[in-house]
Amino acid sequence: MIPRERLVDTARRVYRSYGFSPIDTPALEYLEILSGKGGDETDKQLYQFEDHGGRRVGLRFDLTVPFARFAAQHIAEVGIPFKRYHVAAVWRGENTQRGRYREFMQCDFDTIGTRSAAADVETALVIHDLMRAIGFEEFTIRLNNRMVLAGLLERLDLADRATPILRALDKLAKIGPDGVAGEMQATAETSDEQAREVLRLASLRGTNDEVLGRLDPLVAGSATGEAGATMLREVLAGVKAAGVSEARVALDVSIARGLDYYTGTIYETFLDALPTIGSVCSGGRYDNLAGLYTSQELPGVGASLGLDRLLAAMEELGMVEKVATPAPVFIPYFDPNRLHDYLRLASQLRAAGIGVEVYPDPKKLGAQLKYADRRGFRVALIAGESEFASKTCRVKDLQEAQQRDVPLEPDAASLIAALREILGE
Amino acid sequence: MIPRERLVDTARRVYRSYGFSPIDTPALEYLEILSGKGGDETDKQLYQFEDHGGRRVGLRFDLTVPFARFAAQHIAEVGIPFKRYHVAAVWRGENTQRGRYREFMQCDFDTIGTRSAAADVETALVIHDLMRAIGFEEFTIRLNNRMVLAGLLERLDLADRATPILRALDKLAKIGPDGVAGEMQATAETSDEQAREVLRLASLRGTNDEVLGRLDPLVAGSATGEAGATMLREVLAGVKAAGVSEARVALDVSIARGLDYYTGTIYETFLDALPTIGSVCSGGRYDNLAGLYTSQELPGVGASLGLDRLLAAMEELGMVEKVATPAPVFIPYFDPNRLHDYLRLASQLRAAGIGVEVYPDPKKLGAQLKYADRRGFRVALIAGESEFASKTCRVKDLQEAQQRDVPLEPDAASLIAALREILGE
Repeated sequence: MIPRERLVDTARRVYRSYGFSPIDTPALEYLEILSGKGGDETDKQLYQFEDHGGRRVGLRFDLTVPFARFAAQHIAEVGIPFKRYHVAAVWRGENTQRGRYREFMQCDFDTIGTRSAAADVETALVIHDLMRAIGFEEFTIRLNNRMVLAGLLERLDLADRATPILRALDKLAKIGPDGVAGEMQATAETSDEQAREVLRLASLRGTNDEVLGRLDPLVAGSATGEAGATMLREVLAGVKAAGVSEARVALDVSIARGLDYYTGTIYETFLDALPTIGSVCSGGRYDNLAGLYTSQELPGVGASLGLDRLLAAMEELGMVEKVATPAPVFIPYFDPNRLHDYLRLASQLRAAGIGVEVYPDPKKLGAQLKYADRRGFRVALIAGESEFASKTCRVKDLQEAQQRDVPLEPDAASLIAALREILGE
Repeated sequence: MIPRERLVDTARRVYRSYGFSPIDTPALEYLEILSGKGGDETDKQLYQFEDHGGRRVGLRFDLTVPFARFAAQHIAEVGIPFKRYHVAAVWRGENTQRGRYREFMQCDFDTIGTRSAAADVETALVIHDLMRAIGFEEFTIRLNNRMVLAGLLERLDLADRATPILRALDKLAKIGPDGVAGEMQATAETSDEQAREVLRLASLRGTNDEVLGRLDPLVAGSATGEAGATMLREVLAGVKAAGVSEARVALDVSIARGLDYYTGTIYETFLDALPTIGSVCSGGRYDNLAGLYTSQELPGVGASLGLDRLLAAMEELGMVEKVATPAPVFIPYFDPNRLHDYLRLASQLRAAGIGVEVYPDPKKLGAQLKYADRRGFRVALIAGESEFASKTCRVKDLQEAQQRDVPLEPDAASLIAALREILGE
């Protein structure tokens, strides 16, 4: 929970720095709000029951449906554009497996009420800042736009079969081009030639400028396709203007994200050191958030940080400290007559912003230091009769296995300075 | 949600500074874990159903029962003493009314595995630091110890009737001494004289030292009562040693907290400016957390911050800023050709730790400033062609209705300094 809470705090801080506001919605929604919104599989997984007032209710299975319901009810009051983030648990009654739980946390941010490319640029910037704030320097935000492929499908007279084609294309990395072509012919009734033309688009490689150049002729003549290419140009130019390194953002026309929901820009984020773990932050632009609940059209763009996947990756990359205490400093209750001195010292350090735990029982020092080791404290402050007599305190760096005596003034100034040095603050 | 999230962040920061670790448990527990643990009323309010594997499950109604279950399962692994905090939603299917919802958030901290007075002192210190970190200077932590009253009851031969007596005593402020005496005779079958003796204890007033002095003869001869008085002395002395003003901690032998659960020190916290709202942070010491789930005895002490009540109080006292944005600075998208400059500027300010929102659409300036007003931004940065030509930016303080032009260097240093001044950072 300590690294998880740190990660969520970082995400919140980045979202806030862009003006996204926190919202929360109840875990329980009326069943009619939830059912039929996520496909048959999701309906089956829904935790549902009758409440004490005889109403059918269910536990939310994602944060998008509650946001859509919230927006439909409150958008007149909150006004547009509306930028929100929502970090909360969701529930799915599925079989658990490694990394998949029945309760898990989602961490979404969205801007609704605008079609401007500025919001698409900002979504990429938020992802970028988020990854850096978490501690990643080497990552790639892959960008695409659904309209590019839609334009090509228009040209090929396949616009009505977009959904099965997207589904097939989404498997490119898994089943390869021949597999995808086969599936397109089977599920979307394309010709082999049509499938190959779609794959040609999806296989464009090169720098962002090169891909944009090769894209143009493939969508030329389709208003949708040309608009998609223009949007991609605008987003890439905006991200660059904001100072993001070109190495961090790559146009990738092969990504489709297997959801019919997205209609414009699409985002996926891969760790350069661990690409196989999949996208750790994904999202996209949609035409209408809340069409099922209101006639007001609410276009928007947003993404979701994959907390569990990211934590798994960070653990694999050794980025997660193995500590079971959020306070770095430990004071053993060493001399049974000196509790008040320990309490006073701890208060002084906390007032200086340094977290401190005082052991509650005057047990043997060895047992207390063993506890400190197990919890992962960084420093122990040891003071017994001889230290109090010489007005000093022994500062024991538990990580470096070093120790030294520091003078103990009434305001603990030397000790605070010594601790800040060890803790690198 | 903005002040609520700020409040929770503050609580977490204070808990961490004492070495409390975050834990989380699933919202759904097996029904047998939950039922029968909170009394008939709670059982009736339980949201329960059968999950997809045919197991009876329920939504937790507090954080103590899941903590007890967690401790019983994991205490060998985490070791004692164990200090945890838990901030999470709980559910009760009751009738909603002002300030009471079916889903609400609890914010608990506990230390288990020790009987030491040091942990009781620390609990008071955490409450103290918490109130100050939230922004309160004038508040009173009322302390009592259940053993004091238990000792008196022993002396009066009423030990077996402690529960109905405590329940009656808890209503002292509401129904007055005669009402309480009447209820004690009715529900606990005390004599009028016995009831008056209990009320004599509960009515002790004065400084902490005065009350302690008057207490001693009332419990003299009862080992339980004397131990309670000693514990109170130790807790008060420890809190004072840690530097807490005596005005902030008051011995109040009238508080009983209507739960049989507590066995030692009891805490309630009142706002001096708004005492009628009730205790905003309450808790106490208990002999055994998880007796229902394990034979290992786990004594502990802890308290719970009343988030909803505290937020209501802060609103009433004008301590809650009315803003709908967590970012203080607004950049209107004023000149349609200058989006890249706005994005770059915003990135520079964010890198300096200043939250900034860029409006996504190049609408009329008036409409954008109206939006900024409604959201509660503190500052707007206005830059059009003439500002860009003179390499300046107009800094508009929306709260003070003042504005001035600030030079715009490539690194935005002057602007960052000007904003820090306005924002008081």
